[in-house]
Amino acid sequence: MAQLNKSLIGNLVTVAGWVEDIRDIGRLVFIVIRDTTGSVQAIARGESVRLAKEISRQSSVMIRGLLKESDAKDFRFEISIQDISVRSRASYPLPIDATGRINSSIDKRIDSRALDLRNPTVSTIFKVRALTSSSIRENLSTEGYLEVNTPKIIGTASEGGANLFSFDYFKKKAYLAQSPQLYKEQLIVSLDRVFEIGPYFRAEKSHTVRHLSEFISVDTEAAFVDYEYSMENLEQLIRKVVSIVSNQLRNTVMFGENPILRNNLEPITKVTYKQCLEHLSNNGEKIEFGGDLTDSSLRILGERFKGFYFITDWPTKLKPFYIQEKTEDPEVSESFDLQYGYLELASGGTRLHEKERLQSRLEQKGLRPRDFAEHLKAFDWGIPPHAGWGLGLDRLIMVLTNSQNVREVVLFPRDVERLIP
Amino acid sequence: MAQLNKSLIGNLVTVAGWVEDIRDIGRLVFIVIRDTTGSVQAIARGESVRLAKEISRQSSVMIRGLLKESDAKDFRFEISIQDISVRSRASYPLPIDATGRINSSIDKRIDSRALDLRNPTVSTIFKVRALTSSSIRENLSTEGYLEVNTPKIIGTASEGGANLFSFDYFKKKAYLAQSPQLYKEQLIVSLDRVFEIGPYFRAEKSHTVRHLSEFISVDTEAAFVDYEYSMENLEQLIRKVVSIVSNQLRNTVMFGENPILRNNLEPITKVTYKQCLEHLSNNGEKIEFGGDLTDSSLRILGERFKGFYFITDWPTKLKPFYIQEKTEDPEVSESFDLQYGYLELASGGTRLHEKERLQSRLEQKGLRPRDFAEHLKAFDWGIPPHAGWGLGLDRLIMVLTNSQNVREVVLFPRDVERLIP
Repeated sequence: MAQLNKSLIGNLVTVAGWVEDIRDIGRLVFIVIRDTTGSVQAIARGESVRLAKEISRQSSVMIRGLLKESDAKDFRFEISIQDISVRSRASYPLPIDATGRINSSIDKRIDSRALDLRNPTVSTIFKVRALTSSSIRENLSTEGYLEVNTPKIIGTASEGGANLFSFDYFKKKAYLAQSPQLYKEQLIVSLDRVFEIGPYFRAEKSHTVRHLSEFISVDTEAAFVDYEYSMENLEQLIRKVVSIVSNQLRNTVMFGENPILRNNLEPITKVTYKQCLEHLSNNGEKIEFGGDLTDSSLRILGERFKGFYFITDWPTKLKPFYIQEKTEDPEVSESFDLQYGYLELASGGTRLHEKERLQSRLEQKGLRPRDFAEHLKAFDWGIPPHAGWGLGLDRLIMVLTNSQNVREVVLFPRDVERLIP
Repeated sequence: MAQLNKSLIGNLVTVAGWVEDIRDIGRLVFIVIRDTTGSVQAIARGESVRLAKEISRQSSVMIRGLLKESDAKDFRFEISIQDISVRSRASYPLPIDATGRINSSIDKRIDSRALDLRNPTVSTIFKVRALTSSSIRENLSTEGYLEVNTPKIIGTASEGGANLFSFDYFKKKAYLAQSPQLYKEQLIVSLDRVFEIGPYFRAEKSHTVRHLSEFISVDTEAAFVDYEYSMENLEQLIRKVVSIVSNQLRNTVMFGENPILRNNLEPITKVTYKQCLEHLSNNGEKIEFGGDLTDSSLRILGERFKGFYFITDWPTKLKPFYIQEKTEDPEVSESFDLQYGYLELASGGTRLHEKERLQSRLEQKGLRPRDFAEHLKAFDWGIPPHAGWGLGLDRLIMVLTNSQNVREVVLFPRDVERLIP
């Protein structure tokens, strides 16, 4: 109830919100009214008792009455009710407890997501989400990145084409984009630095706590830089976001146990893929150079490096076709992943910008250059060297809110099983 | 070349960009280097002439040399070249003239969009676009709206279901969302004010200069308000955006002819649908109450009302099922469209928030309430009265940049014919 303040004490005020709680003790009825900004206690006496007794929990109401300071420890103010108008009656029983006192499974909560959001612990997650998006946008704009919108409907399966949703587009076959990778690179022909925050789609049959088939990605690309710059740029962004979110949440209890919000962030450790293999080998997990890091190996690495860390210099063959190899060792690429414990948050690298090398890399990867003709032609136009990264926004929000399931931080998640609400 | 300034005169500087122009006069070569922030003239003398003669237009280069003030009227600075490094060679001939001196059709330009954006007139449109999005976000946040992400993949065809793209989603039928309407309303159960800026999709076979099958929509919804508030809120937002964009563009010539950026905006006129019919009838265009305003009638209205205006109080039967009718005249609804001349930019209204009325309205519209079961259940949870609007971002950018075709203001447009690049 952000609009209530001391200067209004003694005045008639009107507040709107939902009825979180009602205690009827006969001649008095105590009503807790909440909105997204907080709650206030309202007390019905005398004539207003009759009105108060007709209210159901979770109904939307407007209450007019005299504002007083409250003696109750949970409230700063109370309102002595003069009038109650029920604007929308909630039915009874409700599918979940919206106060959060009785726990429900994430599945049941998502079935009733709009109601679930009346629980302040839940709505705070989405406030953190909005704050994170806006501080990412602000910081990238300050760094000279231009926000762009690239198409989500694409005509050719980019990046290899596995796991794309496809559909009929005016009698042509179209796909839902899984990233803006090719578009953001093309834009580097002419726009020095671009970023996009938008929805992407992956038809992957995963049943994990960190994969969804629709997700929000933050993508950047910059001209005349390499992956060292990209890592620096991403690290600075993460530091700023963490600092903004922790300042905002300093006085809320719910994420108090989250270590990254409690302390200043240490500089983010960089560890090469080869160093990871050594550490894994010392811990009984033998992976040959070129093998992907499995879930269990990422859990071992997460134990060792804690919090945020970069895994750099991946084998060229593990990375997509557009990643540039190192001149001194073509088996190794100028690439990185940003991890938080076992969770992959972002990946990036220096891009190939020479058409011939890009074409032969496509062939090495078993892809057909002619399927990428629309993309390749931009490499005839004097495209400068460039680098960039893509960051899973949903996963970053998991980290910031200390959530163990990506479904906690997405309003209406989409996965193999779930297409509603 | 924003990084160049007077304090650097007499120093060695390095600039990166593309070669916009080369004039070879034998012992001297004049090169114009441009990036997204501007251009500088570089002059090769003596030994550097040989390097300069090897460069092709539109190639990406880095040039090192001594910075001087320029005598040439088009440049503030010139660089006396010491070293040139070609970072990416452009082929010859190029598909379009990226300086904009030779006009190409919008179709040819979009075929080579990344190159087309080297034309400053074109890139400025996308700078205006980014500035518009960011000022919309900032203003809505200041007004207490929380930015949300709702799903683009939906399980039931919302709003009637015509013209949706559909596809196979793990053996279920799914659709691409054409608006966040139902989700943003559901969120009003618990979040007082929400907004979203995101891509939406419409499988409409239109061949016009103002329709695309993928477009960006700005959507808001607010609790405990009606359409009068929504119009006020939208008007204030438009005023702020116009003022920010005109301040930013004050010194650029290209949109100088755009009257809305030249003057302060007058208060936005409100005209009812019935008043529109009268004006049309006086101008020989007879439409009965309940008839939609045709293209030709909107052109007549655009002549009369100029610039921005609201058309309010539309017939209930012309508006979607979720729009509330007026108590005193149920044939008329609490609704509005924001127009700019003949172009519809936004529409909004007070929403029905009582489940029974919503159900019977669905039936009146020939829709089946059971198809909307997931949506309707949120109306059991004490959803407050609410109102909001949806604004076509692309169309607003058309107005701000004085563009006659929506394809001018969308990087990679999607329509019946076009799925690439």
